[in-house]
This record gives sequence, structure tokens and C-alpha cells, in this order.
Amino acid sequence: MIHVTLPDGSVRQYEKGTSIYAIATSISEGLARKVLVAEVNGEVWDLSRTLHEDASLKLLTWDDATGKNTFWHSSAHLMAEAVESLFPNVKFWVGPPVENGFYYDMDLGDKKMTEEDLLALEKKMNELARHKNEYIRKEMPKQEAVAYFTEKGDAYKLDLLENLQDGEITFYTQGNFTDLCRGPHIPNTSFIKAVKLTGIAGAYWKGDANNKMLTRIYGVSFPSQKLLDEHLAMLEEAKKRDHRKLGKELSIYTTNDEVGAGLILWMPNGTVIIEELEKLAKETELAAGYKRVVTPHIAKENLYLTSGHLPYYADSMYPPMEMEGEKYYLRAMNCPHHHKIFDAEPKSYREMPYRIAEYGTCYRYEQSGELFGLMRVRSLHMNDAHIYCSKEQFAQEFKAVNDMYLKYFKIFGIEKYIMRLSLHDPAGLGKKYVNEPALWLETEELVRNVLIESEIPFVEVKGEGAFYGPKIDVQIWSAIGREFTLATNQVDFAQPRRFKLSFTNQQNEPEVPLIIHRAPLGTHERFIGFLLEHYAGKFPTWLAPMQVKVLPISDKFSSYAHTVLQALQKAGIRAEIDERSEKIGKKIRDAEVMKIPYMLVVGEKEMLENKVAIRRQGEGNTGTESVGTLIEKLTREINERN
Amino acid sequence: MIHVTLPDGSVRQYEKGTSIYAIATSISEGLARKVLVAEVNGEVWDLSRTLHEDASLKLLTWDDATGKNTFWHSSAHLMAEAVESLFPNVKFWVGPPVENGFYYDMDLGDKKMTEEDLLALEKKMNELARHKNEYIRKEMPKQEAVAYFTEKGDAYKLDLLENLQDGEITFYTQGNFTDLCRGPHIPNTSFIKAVKLTGIAGAYWKGDANNKMLTRIYGVSFPSQKLLDEHLAMLEEAKKRDHRKLGKELSIYTTNDEVGAGLILWMPNGTVIIEELEKLAKETELAAGYKRVVTPHIAKENLYLTSGHLPYYADSMYPPMEMEGEKYYLRAMNCPHHHKIFDAEPKSYREMPYRIAEYGTCYRYEQSGELFGLMRVRSLHMNDAHIYCSKEQFAQEFKAVNDMYLKYFKIFGIEKYIMRLSLHDPAGLGKKYVNEPALWLETEELVRNVLIESEIPFVEVKGEGAFYGPKIDVQIWSAIGREFTLATNQVDFAQPRRFKLSFTNQQNEPEVPLIIHRAPLGTHERFIGFLLEHYAGKFPTWLAPMQVKVLPISDKFSSYAHTVLQALQKAGIRAEIDERSEKIGKKIRDAEVMKIPYMLVVGEKEMLENKVAIRRQGEGNTGTESVGTLIEKLTREINERN
Repeated sequence: MIHVTLPDGSVRQYEKGTSIYAIATSISEGLARKVLVAEVNGEVWDLSRTLHEDASLKLLTWDDATGKNTFWHSSAHLMAEAVESLFPNVKFWVGPPVENGFYYDMDLGDKKMTEEDLLALEKKMNELARHKNEYIRKEMPKQEAVAYFTEKGDAYKLDLLENLQDGEITFYTQGNFTDLCRGPHIPNTSFIKAVKLTGIAGAYWKGDANNKMLTRIYGVSFPSQKLLDEHLAMLEEAKKRDHRKLGKELSIYTTNDEVGAGLILWMPNGTVIIEELEKLAKETELAAGYKRVVTPHIAKENLYLTSGHLPYYADSMYPPMEMEGEKYYLRAMNCPHHHKIFDAEPKSYREMPYRIAEYGTCYRYEQSGELFGLMRVRSLHMNDAHIYCSKEQFAQEFKAVNDMYLKYFKIFGIEKYIMRLSLHDPAGLGKKYVNEPALWLETEELVRNVLIESEIPFVEVKGEGAFYGPKIDVQIWSAIGREFTLATNQVDFAQPRRFKLSFTNQQNEPEVPLIIHRAPLGTHERFIGFLLEHYAGKFPTWLAPMQVKVLPISDKFSSYAHTVLQALQKAGIRAEIDERSEKIGKKIRDAEVMKIPYMLVVGEKEMLENKVAIRRQGEGNTGTESVGTLIEKLTREINERN
Repeated sequence: MIHVTLPDGSVRQYEKGTSIYAIATSISEGLARKVLVAEVNGEVWDLSRTLHEDASLKLLTWDDATGKNTFWHSSAHLMAEAVESLFPNVKFWVGPPVENGFYYDMDLGDKKMTEEDLLALEKKMNELARHKNEYIRKEMPKQEAVAYFTEKGDAYKLDLLENLQDGEITFYTQGNFTDLCRGPHIPNTSFIKAVKLTGIAGAYWKGDANNKMLTRIYGVSFPSQKLLDEHLAMLEEAKKRDHRKLGKELSIYTTNDEVGAGLILWMPNGTVIIEELEKLAKETELAAGYKRVVTPHIAKENLYLTSGHLPYYADSMYPPMEMEGEKYYLRAMNCPHHHKIFDAEPKSYREMPYRIAEYGTCYRYEQSGELFGLMRVRSLHMNDAHIYCSKEQFAQEFKAVNDMYLKYFKIFGIEKYIMRLSLHDPAGLGKKYVNEPALWLETEELVRNVLIESEIPFVEVKGEGAFYGPKIDVQIWSAIGREFTLATNQVDFAQPRRFKLSFTNQQNEPEVPLIIHRAPLGTHERFIGFLLEHYAGKFPTWLAPMQVKVLPISDKFSSYAHTVLQALQKAGIRAEIDERSEKIGKKIRDAEVMKIPYMLVVGEKEMLENKVAIRRQGEGNTGTESVGTLIEKLTREINERN
């Protein structure tokens, strides 16, 4: 008998050689119907594989990222089967799962794939899926594998084989399709209930423009038609909420060829949002005991040699400026400058934790082809701060940072979020990870406990920590269910040593601090891009670039409209007036397009009663109120940021 | 007879050949005793020279910058005479007036000048000055001049002669000293009543380190002993108020070798000042109808070719970064980025004037040797804005900018200021100045009228305008009477054309706007440097990094002290507590050193009465008050910025 430990800590006994699927069934038949793949001692396995030793087991479904990835990987194989059945001369390269679905690169000879072909392929995939063909794993000696593909005349797979060792080569077969594949896969094709092939693109073999252009087909698949429908509706909505489209329509930002790609010029409307976000951050950070600093955007090469960013991070940095025999770099991160501020004066335990914040601008090199609106840019305004603290202070400081995230999530109505806790891999100590096994375990445990205590949903990922300590990646979902990576929190026990930082502890001895790197609001670029989609450009009043538009029905009420405007502006409300000699309907439509939260229509009746007729953006008339009452209401709404 | 026009527009008649001194005497004997030199048709002349044609005449005294410069230039000659009388083998290079006095570079052979020598020289200068020797001008053919210095064996002056044309060579003699000199000079040595030789330095001949090291003697001189005494007292006080000394003592800023020279790292205390200044600027600019923008610190070469900054300004810029076949530059000014924002969307007359502001960071190359604290740096945070307006709107906009200066001067207690209106020189049109004679005259007249109407003290300087329009340099004096250049306002009619900017005017035609460049608070670096000296580090409460320090007399009152602290912080007042187990006297001394405006001592009596004993920085006890009353008073003081 072997012992199988489940995630809740319970242990079950099974015969040696029991399959994972049988174990799943023994736990719950309902669960067994949903399980796609399993994690055995941290490795992902097919359900058909059998256990022969004691093991820890985690059964994964569609709701697990790994389950979903496997589902899409298996869907790529299904698509390949469909392609081969319709275009028998096809040769395949690779077909991985991606962020939202899967693709497969293939050589179709002279055949040009069309939209009709995609429909035919979808139909074929649905038909094949219903056959409930199992994904069968087979290990194969390298020689045999080479012989197989040589006979098939498949140069692409032979090329893949070259880099594989004998003993690690596996094939997967479902129905009439066999592929060289590491796996794992879902049990059978019937899990795939809904398929949408989303696009065709050219892709150079191995990404090299000197090689042949292959055909890449993108697709996405789901375990139910309902999930596919929801996904397509979300994509449709996301298109309407595209931050690049809204960014232009609402005059949020622009870019310019003469300035350079990926360098955002924030127009007045975007700058209002930036300033409101910074105001929020400053208030929040002041209350949490942070001090603020301002540091230059450049530094000499030596600073980045000390930090270790050079040479390892050089590819992501702008090239240097050479001056007076020195190399100066645009900074790609703010930390080294902050360390120099920490180090400018001796510190004692009385000043710890020392928390310094700066909305610092960094510059990072991204390839032109990778640049994308506000999401992938070359200059970033980061909600950055560094907390220098003792080991004893760490847990409390880390918890305070997490609480700050939760506070922000509430303000912005972010209801779905998760933190990925990335840990070290003991095998990588001294190579991928700074060689401090005890510190790793200790801080990982501290971070884990904070997450548990704060009741923040999180997953653990082994082997994805930063070089200098465990980190947390924060994922958030927009109102329409799209996932965004917001920010990273990092624990750092390497940089304090590299920079020789220390404080005098209560025993009057020098002690090396820990550092927490944190940026809960991420960068202005990414966060405002997210907010544009999240709110569909309809910003809450406190964030709206223009909060109120006063709309006189005709010139006759212009003077009264100005009285209203002045009262609003005096109260610090962002308001303007539309004095064009246009019909009121046109004025309302234009204000609606600019998504201004409040429109105040003023005519004869309003003037005589010293009132305004209120329209809410997207809601129409919401009644008439005195200017004083409205200002009071608006001020409260703005101050409470709701 | 010839006609002489005086600055007030009055015209007087004189015989041909009348000396300027005679004219001065004819106007007023009192004036004649003070006149040092004169401006004849815009050229500066000795008083002994005679007029032979109609001319405009301005008599200059010590109170005119040019009068003062001439005084110091003549003092350099007097010093040279003293040196030659004590060290006959000396050879002289050049001896110009400088910002605060004069120097002369000389070759003293093996002689090392000492402090005692300086005292002897001062004595000699005073003695020679009393001789009332006239400065006698003599024109000399080049051949004769060469013969003179060849005989004297003076290689230095022969070198100077090489670059001079025959017909433009003049000599000046006073007493036993004769020098090759363009002049002009003051009438005689008796005007020089007080002399102080301030320093000795080495200076390479022609500034080239491969040449011989000459001896440079610095000095300053005055028309009365009283003025010298005041000057020395001011220097003494300035030393105490040195912004570099105070900047370190008060933890305002730091620099770091690994970051780079001239790159300021603003520490938390300095950042508070920055944020208060930015808050003031934002409030003021919002009320004046400015919008805000945020733009990148870099741009591609092409932007600066369009603006014309490249290649002409390249020496003042950081070298380029080369990336993807393009050159990127750190910006040395914000204007081109702002023009791109103006140009991002079509503009109509309804949106004009379009005013956009940004506390933009610029990077400028200054030689290492020129860097000086916060005064000469390589990164600048500029209180920048650009106003795009029609010609009709210009005067009102320019006046509004000046009003903003006056508002700021009042807030910061700047009582002495002057604006230098720099105009074009018609001879330079198309070369030094954009070739728009009518626009020059028109805008100069507009600017002049605004200055007159606003009753702002100003002087006009012909031939110092910017390439693209007239400009105003704003000079301010600190509380101890030191002069600072704060900022420059410029009118620009060239860049709008280079950038092809336009708006649709009321006639529905494209019209090129004028641009006003303005930065009333200058740069954070220079302005905070000025404020440190101006306030001697004792910032008014609204600007003080820490506004209140709560000082419990002993641990027993710690809890009450925290109640006080929390009440202050809740009211938004920057306050902290000194909980060290030190004597109250020590706590007060330490808070005094940090120049914290309010110290609140709390002990038994205060706790029982729910009050605090108040000490003002530098003033001692100022009485006891309830916490509520104090907070009310402080809040008012802070909000009113007084």
C-alpha cells in the first residue's frame, strides 16, 4: 500500500499502481468528472498515470491555471488532428497553450488558410471531440522516434528531437493524430465542448526572419458552450473598452513619432487622473508613515554594477550616455537611488522602519514590436516605495503593504484578485537564488502567514522567486473579467548587503536591514490603462478629468450658468461651461461622449428658482436641485471617492 | 551746436567738442561728482571724451550695473599699478570686472603671493587712489603698440595685440601704470575709496592646463568705506547661510558619487519643501486657467532638430543614447514636448489661450568644475509652462504672468527685484535674431507697456534678446542683499513656425500662435537654494519640513504628548515627538538646531490643564495655550502661507 497526501493534509491509502483517475473517483465521482490533470509531488501528470510510491497529490480542474493550460494544450492537439484530416500534407512545428487559448504553427506548403477553412476546422474539431478519444501517452527511445519522423519525412519534428535526450521522449496520440509531446494532457477529447478559432497569422520558423514563414492558427476552447459565449461577449466588450481607443476619444494621452515610441505624453485630461492617483497614494502613504523623496532619472554605470542590474539587466535598459569618461544610464528602477538616500545619513533603530516613497519615472527598453498602448511602454511612472526594516518588523510591515492593496481594491471596485507567492527552489540556491537557505525559508514563511492571516486569496509557485527574495505578483480582474498583472511586491535580502546598508540596533551594533519593494498602484501607464477598461471610460466623479459640465439652454442663461460655474469651481470641483450656440440636445450628446459624470442644464425655470436640472452620464435626468445642495452632495461624493 | 538727448526725453544744446563731464556738470554739479561713465548712443564712453555730433546720452553712476562694472575694471588697473610698484618684474595678462568685484591674472615669475602681500597691496592701492590720478585714454597705431611691448619684453600683451586690428587699439594710463585696454574707465582713482583683496588663485594662461599657471588676485572695491563694510558683513552672513551647509544640516538634499555630480537626491525634508512649492504653483496656475501635463524626459534627435536646439545647444545637452538606429536625448528644456501636446489635437480660438504647465525635469550638461550646490546642477525641476495665444491676447497673458511673479514675491517676502528686458538689435536681424522686424518692435512695445503698467522696476538691454523674441530676466535679492537670477520669461514667435503650430481663428482660418515661456518659481534647485539663504534655514511654518515638535519633559507625559501629536497630525500639521530619555534642555536645543518653528513642551501642568507650553524657534517661550486653540492658529498660519 502507498500513502497519498491530499492538499487538506488528509492521507489516504491505495494499492501500488493505482491510477490517479481511480484515486479521484474514490474521493468523489463528481470531482472525477471535472478533473483534468494532477500535480504529483509538484509535477504535473496525466490522470491515467499510476502511483507506485507515497506521494502528495493535487487534482486540478478548469478552475486551476494549470488545469486550464493543459485543456488548451490538448485542444491544440485536437486542432492539429482536424487540420491533418482536412489538409493531409501539413507538417507541424509547435503548438503551446498561451494566455487566452492556444495556437499551433504549421507548414501548409502553398495552401493559404482562409476564414472558411477555420469554420470547417471548428466543425471538424467539434466532431472529433465528441468521439471521446483518449490522449494516450507513450514513451519512446530516441532512435525509434527519429526513425518514425524520418519515415514521415517530417523535418520539423526531427529538428525538435535533436535537442531531446534519449529517455525523456514521449508521444501522445488521440484518434488518428500522434505528436511528439512532453504532455501532460486531459483524459479525453470529450471534455472540449466548445471551440473558437480566433485568428490566422504568419510566424517565422523559430522566430527568425531568415527562415520560412509558417502558418499560425490561434484558438480558444472551453468545457461548456456557456463559457465560450461569455468569453466572446467579454472580448466584444473589451474591444469597446480598448484603452487605446478610449485614451484617444477622451484625450487622455498621446504619443508622437518625433518624441519616440512607447513614450507617453499625458494630455491635460490624463494628467488630472495622474494627479488624483498621486494624491490618493500620498494621503495613503502619509497615513502609513512613509516619507517622500525625489531622485534623478539617471545614474552612473557604477551604481548599477553595485546593484547587479548591470550587466544582467542591460538588455532591458536604454543604452548608456558617455560623458567625461563615464557612462550614465537612464534608470530602469528606483531602488538604487533610494538606497543612497537611506545611506546618506547614519540610521538608528529609532528611525526604523524607514519607508520612502516616490512616484519615480523609470525607462525600460522594450522592442518596438512589443509596445502596446499604455500596457507595454518605455517610460513608467511607478507608485514606488522601499521599506527598510529589521527582521522583527518585517511581518507587520508586509501586512501593512497588503492592507494597502486591499484598501485600493475597495476604492477602485476591484472585486476579483489573487496574489501569486513566488518561492525559491532549493536546487537553485547560489545560482538562481541568493544562497541564504535559512533566510529564504524564514521570509517565505513570514509572507505566507501574512497572506493567510489577511485572508487574501493566493497561490504558491515554487521556483519563481526573485534572485534576492520571495515575491508576490498581484493579479486583478477588470469589471468585464479580463486579467491584468498590477504589481509586484518583493522581499529583498541581497541588495542591502550589496549596498552595505546598515542601521544601529538596540544593542548598539550595526545590523543589515531587510527591504520590501512595493508598488500597489503599479505604474500610471498600466493602471490608467486598466481603469479605462474597468470603467469603460466612465470614471467615478473623483477621478473624472471633467466632473461637471454646465449647459445653458441658450445665451439668455449664460450669466446664470457662469454663476453656477463659479460656485462649483470655488468649491474645488472641476467644471466647465458649454457656451456654444448649439441646441441643448447637441450639448448633452457631446458631454455624454466625453463621459462627464454630471451635466447641469440651466434654463428659465432653473434660473428663476436658483436651481439646476441634473443629468447623470448614461442615466438621463435625475431631478432638479439647488446649487448649494448639489455642491454639498458632490463634495461628499468626491471626498469619499465613491 | 549739437543736440544731446537725455533719458527723460529732454534735449540740450552744446558746442561741438564739449566733454561728457562738462555736460554732466552743466546738468548738476552733484550728479557730476557721482558720474563714473556714460552711454553715448548705446556705447559706453569715458567722461573725458567729447561729443561732435547729435547724440543720446545716459550718465551712469555706481547704481547702474555698467557704472559698477567700470568702477571694478578701473580698480583692476589700480591693483595692477600697486603690484607693479611692489613687484616690478611682473607681467600682466588680463584683468576684467566680474560679478562681485574684479581680478587680474599675472605672471610673477617665481614669486608666491601671500596674505601679507595682499595687505601691502591694499595699502598701496589706497595710497595710489588718493593721488586722484586720471585714467587717460590714448589711441595708438598697432605698429607703435607692438614696438612698445616688444621693448618692454611683454609676450602676454603682444599675444593680445595679435588679435586686434589697427585703428582699434587704445591704451589707458593712470599714474605710473599703462595698459593695453579697450576701456572705458572712471575719471580718476579718487573715486575708489575702499578696497578689499579677497583671494589668490592659480589660473592657467588662456584656461589651458598645458600652459603656464598664472597668479590670479581677486578684489572688490567701493566708493565708500561704509559700502565695503556692508559688503563684508553680507559675505559673513552669507557664509552662515550657505545653502550647501544648511542643506546638509537640515537634511534637505544630498549628492552621491555613484549617482553622479550635479544630480540632486532630495531627502524627505527637501521633498516636503518641493511638494509645498508645487502645491502653491498648482493652486496658483489652476486659478490662472492653466492645465497640467506630464511628458517624458527624453526624445529623439529629430525633435531637437525641429526645435533648433540641435546642433546649436548640443554642448549644453547630455550626449545621445543610440538605440534601434535612432538617437535619443535627455531633454534640456520642456518646450518641444509641450508643443507636441498643443499639436496633438486641432485647436480653435475657443481654446485659446491654451496654457499648459508641468514641473518638468530637464537635464543640462555643465562642466564638473562649474557645478555648485543647488545653484549649478545637471538636473533641474522647472516650474515650467507655455502659453499659446493670439497676438490680441498677448498683452493680457503677459501681464498675468507678471502678476503671478508679484504674488510669489509677496508670499516669499522678496522685497527687492528687478526685471531686465532684453531686446533685439536691428543689426542682428536674420543672424542673431529671427528676421521679423515688425514683430520684434510690436512685442517689445507690448512687453514694455505691460512692465510700465504693472509698475514693475525694469531696465532695458539692447541686443540681449533670445533668438526667437524679447525676454525678461528676473533678478531677486535675498534677505541679506545677495542677488540671484530667478527665472526667464520669453516671448517666442519662432518656435510656433518651426513646429508648424496653428489654431483656427474666428475667421475660420489657420493662425500661428505666439508662445510665452515662463517659470516664475524658476527651478526647485535654484529656488530652494535661494530660500535656504533667504530664510537662513528658518522656513516659515507652511514650508518647514517639520512644523511642530512635541517635547515631553519625561516619560510620565509620553501618553499625553502622543494625544497632542495625534491631534496635530489629524489636522494635517507635520509634527513629531521627541521621546528620547534626554533632558528637556537637550530636546529643545536639538529642535532649535533643526529650525523647527514650534516646540511644544508638555509636563505635569500642561497635562492637567490640557494645554501645551509653546516655544517659537529662536524666540523662546511664547506662552501656554490649549491644543485646540493652537491648532486653529497654526492651521490659519499655514493656510495663509505667512
